[in-house]
Amino acid sequence: MFHHVKELQFNARVSRPDPKFARLLLEQFGGSNGELKAAMQYFVQAFSCRYPYPDKYDLLMDIATEEFSHLEIVGATIQMLLSGMNGELKDNSDESEIMKLLDGKAAKEDFIHEAIVNPQFGVLSGGGPTLTDSNGTPWTAAYVNANGDLSVDLRSNIAAESRAKIVYEYLMKFTDDPAVRETLRFLMTREIAHYQMFEAALATIQPNFPPGVLQGDPRFSNLYYNMSNGPQVRGPWNDGSSTQLGETWQYIEDPVGQVLDTNGLTELSPTGTFRTEEEVARLNESLGRQRSEEIARATREIDMQWSTYTKDGGSIVDET
Amino acid sequence: MFHHVKELQFNARVSRPDPKFARLLLEQFGGSNGELKAAMQYFVQAFSCRYPYPDKYDLLMDIATEEFSHLEIVGATIQMLLSGMNGELKDNSDESEIMKLLDGKAAKEDFIHEAIVNPQFGVLSGGGPTLTDSNGTPWTAAYVNANGDLSVDLRSNIAAESRAKIVYEYLMKFTDDPAVRETLRFLMTREIAHYQMFEAALATIQPNFPPGVLQGDPRFSNLYYNMSNGPQVRGPWNDGSSTQLGETWQYIEDPVGQVLDTNGLTELSPTGTFRTEEEVARLNESLGRQRSEEIARATREIDMQWSTYTKDGGSIVDET
Amino acid sequence: MFHHVKELQFNARVSRPDPKFARLLLEQFGGSNGELKAAMQYFVQAFSCRYPYPDKYDLLMDIATEEFSHLEIVGATIQMLLSGMNGELKDNSDESEIMKLLDGKAAKEDFIHEAIVNPQFGVLSGGGPTLTDSNGTPWTAAYVNANGDLSVDLRSNIAAESRAKIVYEYLMKFTDDPAVRETLRFLMTREIAHYQMFEAALATIQPNFPPGVLQGDPRFSNLYYNMSNGPQVRGPWNDGSSTQLGETWQYIEDPVGQVLDTNGLTELSPTGTFRTEEEVARLNESLGRQRSEEIARATREIDMQWSTYTKDGGSIVDET
Amino acid sequence: MFHHVKELQFNARVSRPDPKFARLLLEQFGGSNGELKAAMQYFVQAFSCRYPYPDKYDLLMDIATEEFSHLEIVGATIQMLLSGMNGELKDNSDESEIMKLLDGKAAKEDFIHEAIVNPQFGVLSGGGPTLTDSNGTPWTAAYVNANGDLSVDLRSNIAAESRAKIVYEYLMKFTDDPAVRETLRFLMTREIAHYQMFEAALATIQPNFPPGVLQGDPRFSNLYYNMSNGPQVRGPWNDGSSTQLGETWQYIEDPVGQVLDTNGLTELSPTGTFRTEEEVARLNESLGRQRSEEIARATREIDMQWSTYTKDGGSIVDET
Amino acid sequence: MFHHVKELQFNARVSRPDPKFARLLLEQFGGSNGELKAAMQYFVQAFSCRYPYPDKYDLLMDIATEEFSHLEIVGATIQMLLSGMNGELKDNSDESEIMKLLDGKAAKEDFIHEAIVNPQFGVLSGGGPTLTDSNGTPWTAAYVNANGDLSVDLRSNIAAESRAKIVYEYLMKFTDDPAVRETLRFLMTREIAHYQMFEAALATIQPNFPPGVLQGDPRFSNLYYNMSNGPQVRGPWNDGSSTQLGETWQYIEDPVGQVLDTNGLTELSPTGTFRTEEEVARLNESLGRQRSEEIARATREIDMQWSTYTKDGGSIVDET
Amino acid sequence: MFHHVKELQFNARVSRPDPKFARLLLEQFGGSNGELKAAMQYFVQAFSCRYPYPDKYDLLMDIATEEFSHLEIVGATIQMLLSGMNGELKDNSDESEIMKLLDGKAAKEDFIHEAIVNPQFGVLSGGGPTLTDSNGTPWTAAYVNANGDLSVDLRSNIAAESRAKIVYEYLMKFTDDPAVRETLRFLMTREIAHYQMFEAALATIQPNFPPGVLQGDPRFSNLYYNMSNGPQVRGPWNDGSSTQLGETWQYIEDPVGQVLDTNGLTELSPTGTFRTEEEVARLNESLGRQRSEEIARATREIDMQWSTYTKDGGSIVDET
Repeated sequence: MFHHVKELQFNARVSRPDPKFARLLLEQFGGSNGELKAAMQYFVQAFSCRYPYPDKYDLLMDIATEEFSHLEIVGATIQMLLSGMNGELKDNSDESEIMKLLDGKAAKEDFIHEAIVNPQFGVLSGGGPTLTDSNGTPWTAAYVNANGDLSVDLRSNIAAESRAKIVYEYLMKFTDDPAVRETLRFLMTREIAHYQMFEAALATIQPNFPPGVLQGDPRFSNLYYNMSNGPQVRGPWNDGSSTQLGETWQYIEDPVGQVLDTNGLTELSPTGTFRTEEEVARLNESLGRQRSEEIARATREIDMQWSTYTKDGGSIVDET
Repeated sequence: MFHHVKELQFNARVSRPDPKFARLLLEQFGGSNGELKAAMQYFVQAFSCRYPYPDKYDLLMDIATEEFSHLEIVGATIQMLLSGMNGELKDNSDESEIMKLLDGKAAKEDFIHEAIVNPQFGVLSGGGPTLTDSNGTPWTAAYVNANGDLSVDLRSNIAAESRAKIVYEYLMKFTDDPAVRETLRFLMTREIAHYQMFEAALATIQPNFPPGVLQGDPRFSNLYYNMSNGPQVRGPWNDGSSTQLGETWQYIEDPVGQVLDTNGLTELSPTGTFRTEEEVARLNESLGRQRSEEIARATREIDMQWSTYTKDGGSIVDET
Repeated sequence: MFHHVKELQFNARVSRPDPKFARLLLEQFGGSNGELKAAMQYFVQAFSCRYPYPDKYDLLMDIATEEFSHLEIVGATIQMLLSGMNGELKDNSDESEIMKLLDGKAAKEDFIHEAIVNPQFGVLSGGGPTLTDSNGTPWTAAYVNANGDLSVDLRSNIAAESRAKIVYEYLMKFTDDPAVRETLRFLMTREIAHYQMFEAALATIQPNFPPGVLQGDPRFSNLYYNMSNGPQVRGPWNDGSSTQLGETWQYIEDPVGQVLDTNGLTELSPTGTFRTEEEVARLNESLGRQRSEEIARATREIDMQWSTYTKDGGSIVDET
Repeated sequence: MFHHVKELQFNARVSRPDPKFARLLLEQFGGSNGELKAAMQYFVQAFSCRYPYPDKYDLLMDIATEEFSHLEIVGATIQMLLSGMNGELKDNSDESEIMKLLDGKAAKEDFIHEAIVNPQFGVLSGGGPTLTDSNGTPWTAAYVNANGDLSVDLRSNIAAESRAKIVYEYLMKFTDDPAVRETLRFLMTREIAHYQMFEAALATIQPNFPPGVLQGDPRFSNLYYNMSNGPQVRGPWNDGSSTQLGETWQYIEDPVGQVLDTNGLTELSPTGTFRTEEEVARLNESLGRQRSEEIARATREIDMQWSTYTKDGGSIVDET
Repeated sequence: MFHHVKELQFNARVSRPDPKFARLLLEQFGGSNGELKAAMQYFVQAFSCRYPYPDKYDLLMDIATEEFSHLEIVGATIQMLLSGMNGELKDNSDESEIMKLLDGKAAKEDFIHEAIVNPQFGVLSGGGPTLTDSNGTPWTAAYVNANGDLSVDLRSNIAAESRAKIVYEYLMKFTDDPAVRETLRFLMTREIAHYQMFEAALATIQPNFPPGVLQGDPRFSNLYYNMSNGPQVRGPWNDGSSTQLGETWQYIEDPVGQVLDTNGLTELSPTGTFRTEEEVARLNESLGRQRSEEIARATREIDMQWSTYTKDGGSIVDET
Repeated sequence: MFHHVKELQFNARVSRPDPKFARLLLEQFGGSNGELKAAMQYFVQAFSCRYPYPDKYDLLMDIATEEFSHLEIVGATIQMLLSGMNGELKDNSDESEIMKLLDGKAAKEDFIHEAIVNPQFGVLSGGGPTLTDSNGTPWTAAYVNANGDLSVDLRSNIAAESRAKIVYEYLMKFTDDPAVRETLRFLMTREIAHYQMFEAALATIQPNFPPGVLQGDPRFSNLYYNMSNGPQVRGPWNDGSSTQLGETWQYIEDPVGQVLDTNGLTELSPTGTFRTEEEVARLNESLGRQRSEEIARATREIDMQWSTYTKDGGSIVDET
């Protein structure tokens, strides 16, 4: 259940209306890396770890709830940046701002120009925020990543926080309103905080590489395919040891040749690795069993009920 | 700011897993008339009435918050209906349910068939809810209606509640799990309650017809165009008086003839109405001024700040 | 079957080209509350009442057909507002308007600026209307609501007409071309007329509340959940009697407390209502049977044929 | 203006309900090559040729209107294929089909299985057509092609008719209901007829290649780039003369070599063609001027009015 | 397998940054008729003719690969047109261009105005191309047509090339940068070349009309329905012989009358054609068998393997 | 420029057709985490680092090209899994598989049931892959993340590889065809390899935290907001030191209280951190200048030309 507190988490203010910046700021309201995306991503992910991983459930719901609170801050700021437009749209008297403007061609041009910065502020939403990105594209759940595996979901979240952070950084270039900049800086900083929370949570899952359960095939996990012409460009991503498995990168300079020589890679042998098929099979089974049991045990206990009402009304966290 | 309470608003339970019904229930999770649509619609509408109409702001945010809470109930129910799938997907041991099934062709067919009821439960979300409708189409903000005018927005909400209600009604036909039906009935009933709240709120706005500020042209507001062949079908929608303006319906049996005779309706005179152009002009101006002033007065006071922190920390509602 | 009459339903004119307003007007051509949305919504709804409710079928198809006719008016107006652009795009001579402009940097800037008001007018549609909203988002059937129940669909239509009305009202602020304003006013007024037609049609369905067939649970239909902090805001939506069922609103000041105390609302008793479970069950059954029979009777008669050709060639309306 | 005739253009019938085929048939109702796509494509294209090319306007509007009429036939067929579902969804009595089924587990499974063929038939549209494709994706204007140039638009239409034809051909494989097959065959045949109409119209535009006005650069218009490995595959598309310009195909066996040798193709000379830069420039200018004047002349005459009301009420076609 | 060559197929250059034109050019990067659409359309079509029609597979993959190469040219050009923006967004020093601008109100207005030409260049992509059209709508696979029948797919491609050509033609009007115009002209010309390649390939398929296999019903293939009012407009599309079947057009002046007289066209007899039902049935069967066998023979041979590795490593083309 | 090699990178085979698994596999062809998403994401990101960071450009284009090659493998596998369907759809003879099936009701049911696993295989694509996810939703560029900053983009890629990996892991549960499993395992393993390449590349950028340039506000970067009720859940994400900045987590047990006490956080002082405003300002400026100069220097040199043709035809990598 959610509860709404009328005060904003941060005391958002604006110095003056600015419809142009309001349009840019939509990117964080209904955009691909905006606050709604973040809130919905963590909220949807939370369902599958409610029982097996109640600590992660708590983390995801706390941050999801904070992101909803940020969505409210962004919406409030957009509304204030559009201040006056809503009332103006309702005024039909001869003395209205618009009526006067219509007498003067140039003034009217200005007014209309301002309005069509984002036409929908003028003709659809009546001077309020729209659930779109800065180009007017409606928010879509295609932005949300939730794959039912924490070693994947937490990585999706680290990346999502990185993107949200850079969008706030870019936005700060486009306003010199100190009140707005203060709010943006608060929001940007929170993405930095969340990033580190998700990273810490990921570290508590061991092993967490590769993401999921299945190990990679030792024949293919350390090959770098040089798919372009030109001189070899070498770096730690294709030279030396790989970051997680510690295998030796094999730089395949001529992928077509290798593919043809190995019957489409089916006759390739592993090189530069100590991992074996036997070890992989063993890991696949043991890790799979462990993760599967964690979930089975936790969800078996719940007797198909989400909350703890019929037991003792206490928090589910107590029981874990 | 939002706060999360771990207990659900309603004690949602399921008697047994049922992936097929889980798919149907997605219609209320990420569908066009589902809980997210409702929550976001009222949330977005609330911004433009925060100051001018704090009572309506309170109403919209209360119901938006309840709809978020319902979204959580629906998601939890889907998760329970998919119970077991998440753990099963992780199990790689030879004794796993799936491995055993793969030995038996028929059993495997069953398993896969069950899975592809909604393929994404199996291969994308790992056995959790997806933010899509029952056909897998991602949720889009194109479902949300918010037009910055309460006499319009409240009507959008009455219709939205009607649609959400009928979808729950339909859903109840497709499960005989008494626990699930109990939850669905609670959710369906809340739509009935919300409907009446929005209707009562609309009635406090006077006049509220036509929606918005501008009056209709008396020449065109009481014409019924018979655009089809066949005998005349008459009913109170084209016979007698119109519901709100009380004008006498004019049934235009031959629209093409009328259009040609009146130079494309530009030479038509009003009939069956007492409304005049003068009255319309007067109403347009007075109502426009009134609504515009309400907004201007309220938003001027706020000095471009959303919450009331720097004043006395009290609730904004106190001040109205 | 449809027939096209080359004359527009209203004699649409423009005083001069105006690409900026053409962009705004797209909101009513391919936007979420535009004419195509209205036309398709009523058209799709009509299918399920063709036989059981031929009078409503007639109403829906008449208005759908009028909305198609309005779509044509809006498209024609946009085309005229873009007048000249199409020809200009084809001219490659040295004396073309564009070639001359390219000599003068400032002039060219103007030309391009004008063009990118909506880039697709210049580079995609060749100076004609595009089936998008004013921000260039393509029209989507996600805008259309059709739920196969007239007590729901007619309410969706009342709300749709309200939104279309306010968008025309907003649009009238952004042009002072008297010819265009005259057309917009005609179109706006027709939404007011359609609103009342749908309202009258809804009133002929009795009972029509709650929408659909199933009654609400008496325990939950009159609760108002105060989901926000701050002082109580009371109004007819949570104080006194509910608008349709006449139950007494129960204001739940502390929803979390109530939920915890009632085992997740499962142990709540109805208060403030005379409705009982028995009455609800009786109504559910009798109304369900009645509506079901209306449909079964009508559709059984038709022998799986849509039109009446093989019988006597007469109108289906005769038979009802 | 449009007019609706209640009789269908073709006497659509079904022998028995078939929800599965109803789902497949949605591909022609709200799918990417369906009837709505066709209707809207020709309708939108028509606007830009209303005055300069009234004969093509007539053609486009006639076929658009016929496609709307086909959309109605497809919708009616889907409604009949779903016959019974709508009434069943309303029946709450103990004797309802569904209630009885719920007693028998297997029977219920069947019922639900049938329903979830397309979940939205059951839980969203109440047993009527939805404006989606056969997978439930909402129709989008992204399907519509209209580029404001008849030599392009007519080719788009020829291709659109080809796709609509093959979809009907595929659909006929999935039903053996003779009544439905008869309707599908009628609709399929009409696409064949329309194809030839658009082809004939295109032939009246001379020259019509290349589409639009600008001629191609003689250096690049007859090159075939062999972008794949393996032996040369030669055919009339890279051997002999090109179909429209009659240039000799130049087969570039080693595109990378050519590109490097010619400084990124900037130092290439035309070969295998008689076309010259001078001729191209002359054609560009003369054809551009001709097309531009056709449009300018026609649209200048209309004095910014779409229909002919204020002149003599006659048809616009008379004047051409 | 693909290989990347770092040099562009054409030596794309720009004379100076131009964010406005960069926005327009997005139409060919992520727009409905842009290079990605073309590349993906031919790539997806290629799969179903890999074995039965290896020459067409080669053609489709060659052109698909060239279109990917064009996508790269367009993206590179957009990146160069946005040159400087990316670095500027990173500069936080007091001497940064932006910081200085913020001191001067007018200058800042200019900067921001430039930026919001396409807000996402500034706040989302950091000064690089976005995979959207010129209005910011994300690319969607709804643009792609692939129907598994070459007589259809090649026609879709001819139309797609026509649209891509006209969009380049329009784009050339909006820049006078000679370097950019040179690139656009190269790209435009290649569409003209591809058009003729697809046309030549279509001609090798005989018969290729109607598209697909099934013949049209002789009763309906030569009817022209006059669906509009006004005088008869006659042209080769409804007068004389049809383009492909050579039937005599039957102009149905009064479609409603014909429909009513023929019991919804079910009692119509063929006129103006020599085609008979018998001939149609024979053609349907023989052509169906032929096409079906071509595919069956080719795909049977491949033993469910795509490439030729296990045989002799040679090209699949050798074997056909 | 791209080049196509007809052999697949991996020798993809199938043991037998399996339309059901073909549908599931679409998730990796046109789904949100599929191969096209990966290919396009890296391809689009590459543009902005072509000159400033040629080593990263090489990495991104190599992996993008490999992902295109994987897209081809997935498409080929789907085509083989659908083997037979395309030919069958063309066969109209009385002896066709379908015709025979239509005689037997049960057999036909089976055929149709198989077909409607994914209706579009049957009625749209003619038995080939569609560019959709496993539910039929068309691929959209909304899946692609490219933000013009390598410290962000590489993190987006690490997450993208994680998601692609888990989807292959899930898919392997749903087939026991050893040939298909072998291909899936190859593809899954390559995601593991790519993950480590992106991670190694990120490590070469120093500092790389926070992503982008701007440092976080020391007042807000180490606060954990407990936004839920219930007992405190503590873990390394809100207890001890933060992962990257090494600040001490401040657990805010009562966020509402803190917000009200600090005037909406505007009067909060930093605690648990050694970072100061001065240090932050200095870092912001120095890092901003450094990154800005890297880009400015590199892009200034290129004289608005993408490739190196006019210089010496050598690879751009030579010059760095």
